[in-house]
Amino acid sequence: MTELLSPAALEAALRQVGEERYHNRHPFHALLHGGRLSRRQVEAWALNRFYYQSRIPMKDAALMARCEDPALRRAWRQRLIDHDGTAPGEGGIARWLALTDGLGLDRGYVVSGAGILPATRFAVDAYVRFVAERTLLEAVASSLTEMFSPAIIGERVAGMLAGYDFVTRETLAYFNARLTQAPRDADFALAYVMREARTVAAQAAAIAALIFKCDVLWAQLDGLHHAYVAPGHVPPGAFGYGAEE
Amino acid sequence: MTELLSPAALEAALRQVGEERYHNRHPFHALLHGGRLSRRQVEAWALNRFYYQSRIPMKDAALMARCEDPALRRAWRQRLIDHDGTAPGEGGIARWLALTDGLGLDRGYVVSGAGILPATRFAVDAYVRFVAERTLLEAVASSLTEMFSPAIIGERVAGMLAGYDFVTRETLAYFNARLTQAPRDADFALAYVMREARTVAAQAAAIAALIFKCDVLWAQLDGLHHAYVAPGHVPPGAFGYGAEE
Repeated sequence: MTELLSPAALEAALRQVGEERYHNRHPFHALLHGGRLSRRQVEAWALNRFYYQSRIPMKDAALMARCEDPALRRAWRQRLIDHDGTAPGEGGIARWLALTDGLGLDRGYVVSGAGILPATRFAVDAYVRFVAERTLLEAVASSLTEMFSPAIIGERVAGMLAGYDFVTRETLAYFNARLTQAPRDADFALAYVMREARTVAAQAAAIAALIFKCDVLWAQLDGLHHAYVAPGHVPPGAFGYGAEE
Repeated sequence: MTELLSPAALEAALRQVGEERYHNRHPFHALLHGGRLSRRQVEAWALNRFYYQSRIPMKDAALMARCEDPALRRAWRQRLIDHDGTAPGEGGIARWLALTDGLGLDRGYVVSGAGILPATRFAVDAYVRFVAERTLLEAVASSLTEMFSPAIIGERVAGMLAGYDFVTRETLAYFNARLTQAPRDADFALAYVMREARTVAAQAAAIAALIFKCDVLWAQLDGLHHAYVAPGHVPPGAFGYGAEE
């Protein structure tokens, strides 16, 4: 990039990142949404993704810890509420546990993170660290994958309900909530990035942050695909190690 | 410490720290509460203390960023709400600005932090860093100065209303809110520390964290006293530099 983009051109560049790199294009998602995974493979996905979910409020708190503006903190606080809820059993993390419960996974095992792939942990931890350490603009921009999530959620819920008899509308309740939360969050974050990315370098950094975040999501599916789909190389200690796929 | 304390003995040890080190014992507070400061000195206190207030939600977010337990994050989130409010003009930071407004200080100048003492910045930043970097137990324990604040607030409001005609009940509204918020927060944090400090080393670390926090508060008053009371050495660039006290 050598020229400052207009707000519309910046938004288009950010959306282009999603077109090319969002994890709806990953082969694992095609299998998941197409009903072509075994129950164990779906369990592995839900188990590993729980670790990502569990770190999201910590990531959001890390962003707020660096934020001097009460108004931005107030707006961002809604994400903590969405994920942690206002009482035990509420919020996105609890809704994800309803999914792992519904799949028959032991809740203590899920929460412990004991069975997740190292690739999951490395990718998720890299995301939390990125938000804690990069500029506030990059931290906000890295959340913009939410611009792309409503489409994937629509596909996912329809595909999983059609494809798996062990999945119900109730156990997929997490995604229903995200259908309204994600666009609201994405609109706010996109407006922030368009307002605050006022130099060529800042715009490039915002786009790079979104690419980074797409990599974080993609790498998690790479790990799942390698371990549980083909050729089925579950690493020692991870969910399903030693068992036949 | 060489023996594990009972919960009651641990609480007593923590309260003893307050008896010996809480900043209600600082000579600056005796002057402030006794109505014996000039308006400019009260302004200097309110201005510098704003920086502390402004960093509290960042400190609390830093704690939540390290916290894996949704229940603890949910409970701690109330502090963000108390300080940032739910809309512009609400919350503890806005109430502190009502005080600096009431004293006639320019809001932009207050929010900028431009006129604060380096001693204020160093002490407050050390606190935020402590919470971000030490163990979660130490981070929680460092908040326990709130066990001691209702007493000082009672003295402060009564003393300032009696002693200064430029202070009103409205401009001191911050403290009214804290009279109910601080004990609720302190009860929660004390219960956490008594539950989680299960080794001699952990109990010693919790007590040391509270001593550290008392030092943070005390050092801020040392800075104010040195610069604005006696002998009146305002450092270059700070509020009142070059003006007569």
